[in-house]
Parts: sequence; C-alpha cells; structure tokens
Amino acid sequence: MDLIKNKKLLMHVGPVDIYEEVLYAGLKNNVGFTSEEFVNAFRDSLKGLRYLFQVDDTYQPFIIPGGGTSAMESVTSFLTKGDKILVVSNGVFGDRWINIFKKYPVEVDYLKAEAGDYVSIDSVKEKVKQKHYKLVTFTHVETSTGVRHPIKDSVKEIKDYVDIVVVDGVSSVGAEEVKAEDWDVDIYLTASQKAIGAPPGLGLLVVSENAMKHLREDNIASYYLDLKNWLPVMRSMEEGKAAYFSTLPVHTVFMLNEALKLIQDEGIENRVKRHEKVAGTIRAGIEGMGLEIVAKRPDAYSNTVTGVMLRKAKAQDVLSEIIKEGVEIAPGVHPSLQGKYVRIGHMGWVTPNDAIITISALERTLKRLGEDVRVGEGVRAAQSYLT
Amino acid sequence: MDLIKNKKLLMHVGPVDIYEEVLYAGLKNNVGFTSEEFVNAFRDSLKGLRYLFQVDDTYQPFIIPGGGTSAMESVTSFLTKGDKILVVSNGVFGDRWINIFKKYPVEVDYLKAEAGDYVSIDSVKEKVKQKHYKLVTFTHVETSTGVRHPIKDSVKEIKDYVDIVVVDGVSSVGAEEVKAEDWDVDIYLTASQKAIGAPPGLGLLVVSENAMKHLREDNIASYYLDLKNWLPVMRSMEEGKAAYFSTLPVHTVFMLNEALKLIQDEGIENRVKRHEKVAGTIRAGIEGMGLEIVAKRPDAYSNTVTGVMLRKAKAQDVLSEIIKEGVEIAPGVHPSLQGKYVRIGHMGWVTPNDAIITISALERTLKRLGEDVRVGEGVRAAQSYLT
Amino acid sequence: MDLIKNKKLLMHVGPVDIYEEVLYAGLKNNVGFTSEEFVNAFRDSLKGLRYLFQVDDTYQPFIIPGGGTSAMESVTSFLTKGDKILVVSNGVFGDRWINIFKKYPVEVDYLKAEAGDYVSIDSVKEKVKQKHYKLVTFTHVETSTGVRHPIKDSVKEIKDYVDIVVVDGVSSVGAEEVKAEDWDVDIYLTASQKAIGAPPGLGLLVVSENAMKHLREDNIASYYLDLKNWLPVMRSMEEGKAAYFSTLPVHTVFMLNEALKLIQDEGIENRVKRHEKVAGTIRAGIEGMGLEIVAKRPDAYSNTVTGVMLRKAKAQDVLSEIIKEGVEIAPGVHPSLQGKYVRIGHMGWVTPNDAIITISALERTLKRLGEDVRVGEGVRAAQSYLT
Amino acid sequence: MDLIKNKKLLMHVGPVDIYEEVLYAGLKNNVGFTSEEFVNAFRDSLKGLRYLFQVDDTYQPFIIPGGGTSAMESVTSFLTKGDKILVVSNGVFGDRWINIFKKYPVEVDYLKAEAGDYVSIDSVKEKVKQKHYKLVTFTHVETSTGVRHPIKDSVKEIKDYVDIVVVDGVSSVGAEEVKAEDWDVDIYLTASQKAIGAPPGLGLLVVSENAMKHLREDNIASYYLDLKNWLPVMRSMEEGKAAYFSTLPVHTVFMLNEALKLIQDEGIENRVKRHEKVAGTIRAGIEGMGLEIVAKRPDAYSNTVTGVMLRKAKAQDVLSEIIKEGVEIAPGVHPSLQGKYVRIGHMGWVTPNDAIITISALERTLKRLGEDVRVGEGVRAAQSYLT
Repeated sequence: MDLIKNKKLLMHVGPVDIYEEVLYAGLKNNVGFTSEEFVNAFRDSLKGLRYLFQVDDTYQPFIIPGGGTSAMESVTSFLTKGDKILVVSNGVFGDRWINIFKKYPVEVDYLKAEAGDYVSIDSVKEKVKQKHYKLVTFTHVETSTGVRHPIKDSVKEIKDYVDIVVVDGVSSVGAEEVKAEDWDVDIYLTASQKAIGAPPGLGLLVVSENAMKHLREDNIASYYLDLKNWLPVMRSMEEGKAAYFSTLPVHTVFMLNEALKLIQDEGIENRVKRHEKVAGTIRAGIEGMGLEIVAKRPDAYSNTVTGVMLRKAKAQDVLSEIIKEGVEIAPGVHPSLQGKYVRIGHMGWVTPNDAIITISALERTLKRLGEDVRVGEGVRAAQSYLT
Repeated sequence: MDLIKNKKLLMHVGPVDIYEEVLYAGLKNNVGFTSEEFVNAFRDSLKGLRYLFQVDDTYQPFIIPGGGTSAMESVTSFLTKGDKILVVSNGVFGDRWINIFKKYPVEVDYLKAEAGDYVSIDSVKEKVKQKHYKLVTFTHVETSTGVRHPIKDSVKEIKDYVDIVVVDGVSSVGAEEVKAEDWDVDIYLTASQKAIGAPPGLGLLVVSENAMKHLREDNIASYYLDLKNWLPVMRSMEEGKAAYFSTLPVHTVFMLNEALKLIQDEGIENRVKRHEKVAGTIRAGIEGMGLEIVAKRPDAYSNTVTGVMLRKAKAQDVLSEIIKEGVEIAPGVHPSLQGKYVRIGHMGWVTPNDAIITISALERTLKRLGEDVRVGEGVRAAQSYLT
Repeated sequence: MDLIKNKKLLMHVGPVDIYEEVLYAGLKNNVGFTSEEFVNAFRDSLKGLRYLFQVDDTYQPFIIPGGGTSAMESVTSFLTKGDKILVVSNGVFGDRWINIFKKYPVEVDYLKAEAGDYVSIDSVKEKVKQKHYKLVTFTHVETSTGVRHPIKDSVKEIKDYVDIVVVDGVSSVGAEEVKAEDWDVDIYLTASQKAIGAPPGLGLLVVSENAMKHLREDNIASYYLDLKNWLPVMRSMEEGKAAYFSTLPVHTVFMLNEALKLIQDEGIENRVKRHEKVAGTIRAGIEGMGLEIVAKRPDAYSNTVTGVMLRKAKAQDVLSEIIKEGVEIAPGVHPSLQGKYVRIGHMGWVTPNDAIITISALERTLKRLGEDVRVGEGVRAAQSYLT
Repeated sequence: MDLIKNKKLLMHVGPVDIYEEVLYAGLKNNVGFTSEEFVNAFRDSLKGLRYLFQVDDTYQPFIIPGGGTSAMESVTSFLTKGDKILVVSNGVFGDRWINIFKKYPVEVDYLKAEAGDYVSIDSVKEKVKQKHYKLVTFTHVETSTGVRHPIKDSVKEIKDYVDIVVVDGVSSVGAEEVKAEDWDVDIYLTASQKAIGAPPGLGLLVVSENAMKHLREDNIASYYLDLKNWLPVMRSMEEGKAAYFSTLPVHTVFMLNEALKLIQDEGIENRVKRHEKVAGTIRAGIEGMGLEIVAKRPDAYSNTVTGVMLRKAKAQDVLSEIIKEGVEIAPGVHPSLQGKYVRIGHMGWVTPNDAIITISALERTLKRLGEDVRVGEGVRAAQSYLT
C-alpha cells in the first residue's frame, strides 16, 4: 500500500474531491423513485437550483441524467428544423457545442478564441447584428484552459438581437458569481460533479419563461434528452408528487440535494469568496515558483480551473508523478497546447489548505522532474497570499 | 419516527434494494475519471458485462450514462436514415421503442400483445417474412406487467430474415437466463438498477461483431448517445488507459463493478436459480391468499416482476398502506389495467425471506383495506413452497 | 458468495441488528475527543440517558468504556471494605455479580432461581429483613434465559431495608418499561449494544443522589472503573466543556447518541410497545409450530429475549443451519439446559417483519434437522397474532 | 456552515485522523460476536498484533475493551499482594502507572524526569540493583510531552535484575521502531486509536511466555480487567472458535483488523519511515518559524507527538483559532508547563502533506494571535526538508 498515493487530494476538474456529508447522503439502500423521501429530495433540489443560479419561480429548473454534455444537448429541445445558432467558443468545450449541433438540422456559425483568451464582446456583437440567431451559446469558464468569459457584459450587449442566450456554466456555477436572472440569461446549465461538489451523473438547467415558450412539440431533440418529456416530471416533483419518465439516478440526487443544502448553509456569496481565495492562493503559488498560467490576462482567470504552462517537464510525467506526492491534477486538453500544460481544478469543497498542499506537491514533483522551479518559494508565496 | 416505515424493504421494479457491499463501493471521495482505480474498475466492469450477458470477446460492451432508456435510444447509432424497424411490444416498455424511433427518420412497424400476454412467435415470424427489417426489438421481461417473452425461441425463428436483433433485457439480465451469444442476439441491453442491483445511472449494452459493422459515421443518433463517440472510450478503458468523451458517473461505476463482481462470485446460474425460488415463493403466496397474477400463463411468469390483480382495493391505497407494514412495492402502469393491479419487484439481492415478508405485509395490508384475502394462507403457502 | 447467509438478519442477544442511521453516525474521521462536535454529542447522550431511564436531574448519568460487565463492576465505586451485598440471581448474568464481588473485600450473599424462573419477591424480602445489606442487585431481564424479573414490585417490598438497590437492565432498557426514579432504583445500568441498538463498547448507568453519597475516596473500585475518576468528566461534558480521564470510544458515542435521539423520536412508550408486539409475534410463532419457551410463566416472558426449547435437534446445529436460511440467533448458555435450547434476541430496531422472517427461517431449519414441528403453522400463527 | 472548520485535519494525539478504509470496515450492521466473520477478524487481529509488536508465537496477544489505561491496569493480572514495582515516569502518563498501582495492595517506587526529558538509564539501573522489583514500567513515548524513551537500551541494562518489564507503547507502536521480542520486553501494550489509526475502544497487549507464568489465579486484578478471564477467549478465537467472557466492541475490532491489515500491506518499516519523515517535516517547520520544541534533545524527539512552546500566545487561544484554519491539535497537559505549549499529534495515516498543512495553519494562527513568528519561513523550511 502506498498510503500517500491512496490518500491523495483530488484537484481535478471534475469529479472533484467530495465532502463526506455529500457522499454519505447517498447511503440509501431502500429508496424507490416513488418514495416520499426521494420526492422530497428532488423537490428540494429543484428549489436549490433556483438559489444556486439566482433565479426566481419564473425559471423552470431541470435535473436530468447525464452531465454537462447531456445538459448542453438537451438545449435542442428549444430548437426546430432550420434554426440559426451562434456558438461563442473559447476552447474544447465551446467547440463541443458545434459538434453537438452538427448532428441536427440547424445552421451553426461560430466565433473562436485563441487558447488562453476569450472571444471579444465586440466580435460577438458584430456577429449578432449581421444575422438573426435563434440561440447563442457561451461558456462561462472554459474547462480546457481555465479561461473565464465576461458573461454579464457579453449578454447585455447582445440580448436585444437574439432569442435565446445559453450559458454553459459547467465549471462556474457554485464557484463564480452567477446571476442568471439579473444577467438576462435564458438557459444556464451545469453538471453535478463540478463546483457543486456532488458526484457526476446529473445535468442541471434553469430555463427562463421566454425560453420555455420555444419548447415545442416538434422540437428536434432526441427522445431521452427532450425536455418536453422531462417537464411533467419536474412539475409534479416540485409539487411533491412522484412522477416518471425514465429512471433518475436516485442516489446521485440525494447527494446533489445534500450539496445544494450545504451551499445554502454556506451562502453562495461566501462560497464564491472561498473559491476566489483558493484560486488566488494557487496562482500566487504558481507564480511564486516561477511558472506561467494559461489564461492570458487576470480578467480571464477563473475561480475554478488554473492551467499551468510547463517548460521542460512533460505533462504526462507531471500527472503520474504528482500522485506519488498525494495530489491528483488534470491533463491539459486544448489541442494547440497539447502536452505543454496541466490543469489544477479547485472547486467544490476546496480550502486554502488544499491550495497549499497542491503547490507544495507540485513544487516537489517539478523539482524531481528537472523543471526549473524555485522550490519553497511557491509555498511561501501561497502562504503570504493567505496572510 | 416510524421505524417500520423507515426500515422498509424495497420490492420495487428499480431501483431495487441495494446490497451494502455495493453501496459502500461508491464511498470514494477522491477518485478522478483518469485515476488508475477508476480505469481498473471500468475495465473490470466491461469484462463483467461479457460474463453477465454470456458473450465472448467478439461482442463489444458499452457502459453509458443514463439507464434503460438511454441504452435503448443509443441503438439509433446502428441506424441510418430510412431504415425499417419492427418493434415487438408486450406493454409500456415495448411501446417505448416506438416512441423513441418516432423521433428519428426511420420507418417503424410494430406488433402489440394484450396486457399479461406476449406477442406470439408466429406473428413475428410472419411479419419479418413480409418485409425486410434492418432491426427488430424485443423486450425480455416487460416491466409494466411482469410478462416474460420467449427470447431464445423467437430469435431462432426470425434471425435469418433481419439484420439486427435487439433485446431490451432491462428487467431480465441478472435474474433470467440470458445467453446473448448462443441465442444469436446482436444487441442485448440493460440498466444498472434492476436485477444487477446497483444504483441507477448507467445503461449497459453488449453488441455483436455483426451489429458493430452497422455503426457508421452517418448514423442518426444524437451526439450524447452516439456509440461511435463512446467506442474509443470503451476500447481504451478495456486496455487500462484513461479516456474521455463525456464524464461518466464514476461512483455508480464503482458500485456497478462491485455488483458485477458479486454476480461472478455467486455464479450467474445460482443467481438465476435464486430469483426463480424467490419468484416462485411470491407467486405461491399470492395464490395462497387467493389473488390472481397479471401474467396470464405460467410460461409468461418472470423471475423479476409479479403483477398482482386487485379486486376491491385501490392500487394507490395498497401502495401507501403497505409502506406502513414495512414494504414498498410499485404501481401498475399498463394503461389497460389502470389502478387495478400493483407490481412486486423481486430482483437483485432478494432472498426467500424477502418474499416471506412481502407476502406477510401484503396480506396484512389487503386485510386492512377490506380486500377478500385468506390471511395467513399466503404466508403458509409461501413457506410450503420453500420447504 | 452465499448471499442469503451474507444478508442474514441478526436476531442475537447483542450486538443486535443496527439501524443504518446509527451506523452511519459513526462515520467521522476527524473528530478529536476535545472537539465541539464530540462534546455536544456526549452532552446530548448524557441527557438522553435520563430520558431512557426515566429519571430527572437528581440522577447522575455515566457513560463509561466497556459494556454491561464494566458497568456492573463500576458499582464497586460505591462500596468500601467489608460491605454486605445481596445478589438476586436468575441465571448466568445474575451469577456474574457474584463472580465480580468475589474479587473484592466484601461479603456476598445470594438467592438463586431455577432456569426459566425468577427469585420470588417473598424470598428476597425475607433475606433483607434478616441482614442489613448495603447493596442488593437484581437482573431485570436475565439474558441467559429471557426471564423478566418484576423489578417494580420487588424494589417496593425491600427498599426500606437496604441502602442501595442496583438493577442490571442490560437486556431490558430501551425495550421494557423502566422507570428508575418512580420505582426508587438507585443504580440502573445497561450497555450500548442491546435494546438501545448501538454497537458494543459502552457501559451506561444512572445513579441516584442517595447512591452518589456513597461514592467515597476510599472506595474499593479499580482505577479504570472508579466512577470517582469519571465523575468530573461527566459533569464537565454536561456543561459543554471537554474533559479527560481516559480516552472514550468517540465513534461509539456518536452512534449511541444517534440511537438515543431516535429513541426520543420514536418515544419510549412506542418503543416498548413495538418490542411487545415483536415479542408476542415471536412467541405466537414458536407455539404455533409446537415448541416450548424457556421462561416458565407468561409473567416471566420478556420483550427482548426468547429461549426456545429443542426436543431432538442439537442447539449447535440449529445455530449453524439457520444462518443458511438468513437468520442468526444465539446459543442457550444456562448451564442446567446446556445444548437444549437456543435464544432469539428481539431488541433494538426489530420489526414485526423481522419476527416473521425468524419464525419462517426457524421452521425451515428445524424441519430440515428432523425436529417435529408443524411447518407453516408457526408463520401462520405469527401472522394471525399481527392481524 | 464553516466548511474549513468542518473539513479540518485532525492532528491530535488520539483519536487521530482515520483512514477511510478503516472507518468503512466498521459498517457492519448484522454481525454477532459469534459470527464466523467476527471470529475471523478477531483471529487475524491477534496475529496482526504479533507482527505489529514484532514477536513470535511464544507471546500471547490480548485485545480487551477500553484503551491505553485499561491495558495498563490489566497488568495487575500478573501481580499478587505485596509485589514490588518500579515506575519510570517521564510525565503524565508515566505518573498514571503510579495512580493505578495506588489502588492495589502493592509497593510502588518511582523515578521521575523533568518535563521534556526522560529518566536516565543509569538512574534506573541503580534503582533496580538496590531492590528486587517484580515489575518495572516504562513509557515509550510520553504523550504529554512527546518525549521518546530509549527502550531498547534501557531494557538491556536492567533486564537481569527484574522479573517483568512492561512498556507502555500507546504513542509509539505503529510509528516507532518496536521489537518487543528482540528487546526482551515482557509486556508491550498500546491502544487502538493512536499510531495504529483505528477508533478508540480497545487496549492491546502482547505478553511473553515468561510473564504469562505470573498470571495466577490469586492475582489482584479486578474482574473485568483480569486477563485470566480473557485468556480463554483469546486462545479460542485464535483457533477460529467463538468464545465469550464479556461482549467486545465488535465494530471497533473490524476497524482495528483493517488497520492492522493495512499496516502489513505498508510494511512496518515503511510505516516507521513515513512517520519519521512527517515528524521531521513538522519539526523543520516549527524551527523554521522560530519556535522551540518541548522535547529537550534530538534523541528524545518522537515520531508521533511534538510539543510546541509558545511565547506570547495562550495555548487555549491557539487551539480554538487553528480550527478556523482547518487543523485541530491538542493542548499541552504537563502540569509544569501548563498553558505554555500545544501538542501536534502526527501518527497513524499522516502524510507529508498533512505536515505542510499543519505548519501552514499554525503559522497563520500564531501570526493572527500576535506571536512573533516568521510567516512563510515555516512552510518553506518544511518544504525544504521534504526535497
């Protein structure tokens, strides 16, 4: 047994390290999907989503099986044949929208940013003025690079020109400021396993009244991801009555519900501040040891994912070696930076101590791999940031 | 606290009562989807599926997010525009195939049985002789009525006339004899939360070499359920290398893996025998107390679901009252018998003692609701069956 | 894997089958004995004991490591050299008092009952009139035979003649009516793993003001079990302040605390009634199948332990065979009935369904072992008792 | 919810932070003390103790309820009236031996060291030459100060003059080199909740053949802690047969057994090295920030407990404030240094990352409390120690 490896801290981009109370909430062996206990947990989770996304009762929440990708694809429920769509992509998960829509009879345009940057508000504005789009998609935090998009400002500039604005908040919701209603976002979505800190298995969305009007019988969605099939379940459950379309991951819902309760206990503002503090500590440590961050400008730094550029060490070696130091981080996946960076996920239940460990383990790992880092200076800088 | 209600035995059609070892296998807070531990569990699960469905390495196993419905819909990955399909439906979940295919540009014919019965082999044979179908679907055990279809004999009669035979084994795999390869079934599918006895969240399929040839680039599947996107993940994982398409429910996979291990420990034949014994005990009890079973003929009885016809009592009352006796069962959902029957699920980790409790609690419940049952005779008959 | 054996129901005399919520309350990996969380749980447990034993604040509760025997032996804290003691013994655990006191410089007399009976009130009264005893001990339910002693009436008759009345409530507290204060008992004790339904590891006592006066510096107790050493810990903890004498089993305390909370939720009267119902069902089943109970008279029947006399089958065979039927019961241990009976424990979180299973499994087991029982009649009688 | 406080790392002197696998090993709701499963776990634990203490089959292992103190007091089983005893005390837990023996009819002499130091080998040697002692006690690591006694060398010098040498290894076994047999120690004892890393609730001893000869019928032990009563249980269990004297904490035994298995997996030498590394990191950090350690000389430093002297800050404030930084440590308890120091426990499953967190949190805490520390230098020094 290599205890250090077994006791490793998971600083991945999802699933993330799960708080025990959340994990234990799934220890239910005899709860059917029509049980009072499950119905209550589901109802509470729907309400919890409204708090999480900061929306009122005019928004319809959805909890569907799958995760980020299934939540994204379910947006096809609001589309009909021939609709025009604009995808604003800052990386791999922005591009995923394009791959999804390609499977459907719609017309897709896109704007792409370079790795480490986001598409400028101006270029989006220009685009939506040129053509009327039924739907525009943004990615709040691009998981592949850790770049944060200025959602609030972008939406303000374009909202008048498009019907439905969709934001993929997979790596932001629960850790970044998100005010779906105030910001006039129609569909904000996320997944259970990121900054919410529950296990993977659920896609989560809130949909505005405006967008709900587009949920037509003749939509182009598949059967399983057609939100029209799920809507009666959501409505019935919110009224405390069991309903069925297809079996939901009951245990994951209990864990999600516990996570949402804890988020309410902590307070979403405190939670965002905690993530800011941890992210700041991580970046201070990275810079302290003399390395660069993938996101090119401070206003693109996210609270949840930090890409770390490597000079000599290979990303794959860093990943496998840092586990021996008790920390698991994620590979870089942006094609244009292949093998040249690693990602630290810092979301969910992370604390400043987790940041300290991560920097400490990364220093030791890079030192061993011959990377030119200032050992001890990373942790000192991280510690200074905290005091 | 109503302890009896809290300690209730779950005799539902899914999720079912989960064995502790399975539940505890999900207690992992720090396992990323690229972790060695997860990759190993996934690899073992893929291999475990081959044993479960009794197929060799020529069959490709798939573990995808969702459940029975997502597994069913993923079959569209083997279809292209205009394909002809025959659905053999014995009830609600047979009809689900029709609803799924309606969403796609294919031509769907169907055969339907009355509630409690299955479509005769002859009528299927006649149909496939008349028209060449790319794909025919069967439902091994129709969850809505508990009717078991004679898969082996049906497939033998029609295989020469169709390209791909699909069997929905959602309520059979793990409890009924299933020999996908010997029976020449191309695609056999199930979900994690039924007779396998893991939590819901995963759709499971094995696909023959023959069917895999039809997995084309221009298939009509949605993005998330396109098995072409999942195939590289399955192949890589089986070789012990992490791979990513969309985040899998990591924790549920660990629980599935534990369930599959325990199935191998028990031996699939022993497991089927145990289910037979429990199902026989349940039916003996039902008949002992003087009630009728929904499945019309003994050869349609299943090892997993028993529909119980009510005379006076309302199904909804039975469901809510039997919980007070410490057992949770499921509502009847076949439209033609609406409110007239309840379903007892007996799959996964059920034991003869679970059958005894269920009969005992049902007797007490029905007595209290004024149904004309012979109290004490059900349990006595069940006990006699066991000795 | 023999699933039936693994999923066995524990109908033992302690530890008993533990309710999940209780078990999960111990899932704490980072709680020190000075933690706020632990101190609160300990404080609540002390208060919970007062409710359990039905005493007010004039009684001092103690939670000490060990179990029934350590709680019994800690009574030496109230004794000094040369004290006279009367032990009223109905079996093995009554005799245990004698074995304990033999280790100390005190004078011990005793009264013993035959197996299946209890010492008559008259004989105790006669004895205490003849000699002045500092301390008299009773056993509320004699675990070795399941015989219940009429504590209330016995204490009333003798209280005027003795200084301290001690009742071993190990197999009664939490399942039988216990009113330590109303009945004028000075020291009532039990253990965590019996009718309270927590894991073993803790001895529990409540001590009257009267008895506390006898807790002298020069008592004869050992160091570890000297309640004088534990008293400051109990007092400090009850005020919410951490204190230390010797490390307590922190995790077991959390589980005890959860059990005590659930007892308060259920209500002690409801809990006693539930045990009565289960015990009645068990006895109806035993008699229905044609066997005899060890306790000789109905007024000696207990809510917690039922001894079952065997005719032909060997006790050891019954124990090992019934596990294959999914139930674990306990051996008989009274020397005068060696090998001739088995014990069914029915305490803690037992339900009527547990009673049904036990009778059903026992019938099947005895049938297989060639015992002359009326198979099916036991479960029918048990079921009739319940309806 | 204050997440940071809730997710705190427990760096206490016992119970310590428990590894999940150990905690989950106790999740058993239906295991009686006569169960095959329990008997096997107990048997394996007895064998595991021999490995842990590095003794062969000539040593008799004991697992008894309680913890360090009950294990210590059970040593009275080897004494008879009037025996002469020498206690070698380096602090509070050395003194505990004196308090225990005071309760018994034996003659006790003692040697005491100053806080931070240990009694010199010479003074012990001188003492045992002057008077023949039946039994001499040492404390391997004095938990109150973190001082380690040179057991091997001490025993070598005195063994010829005394009958039985006892070592309290409560804060050493599992983290320090311990070779009971090679070092000729007769009784080596510990508790489950320290460096073994299981929950509290069990006292653990190994006893040499030589000492076992002194386990007489007329020993002075109390009933519960008389090892003569426990011996048949240990022997029977080791042969795989259930036995009973008084109910053992079944669940804690399962957790102990898992911990012992993991210790064997890790290898005791690796485990000791890991503790050395962590302890070294802690001390480097303490010194780096400019503070002093209670143990006065490097050869008295232990692998398990480090006392940290405070200059201005009050111990109580440090304890309550550091929890807000996510770490729980222990108060100093040596009377002569009252309120002037705190203790860091680093045993069981600790890793270098735990050391880094602790130093980091302590720096931040002390800074906030106005203590004159070099913030950032502690973590840097700790990190340097590791690289």
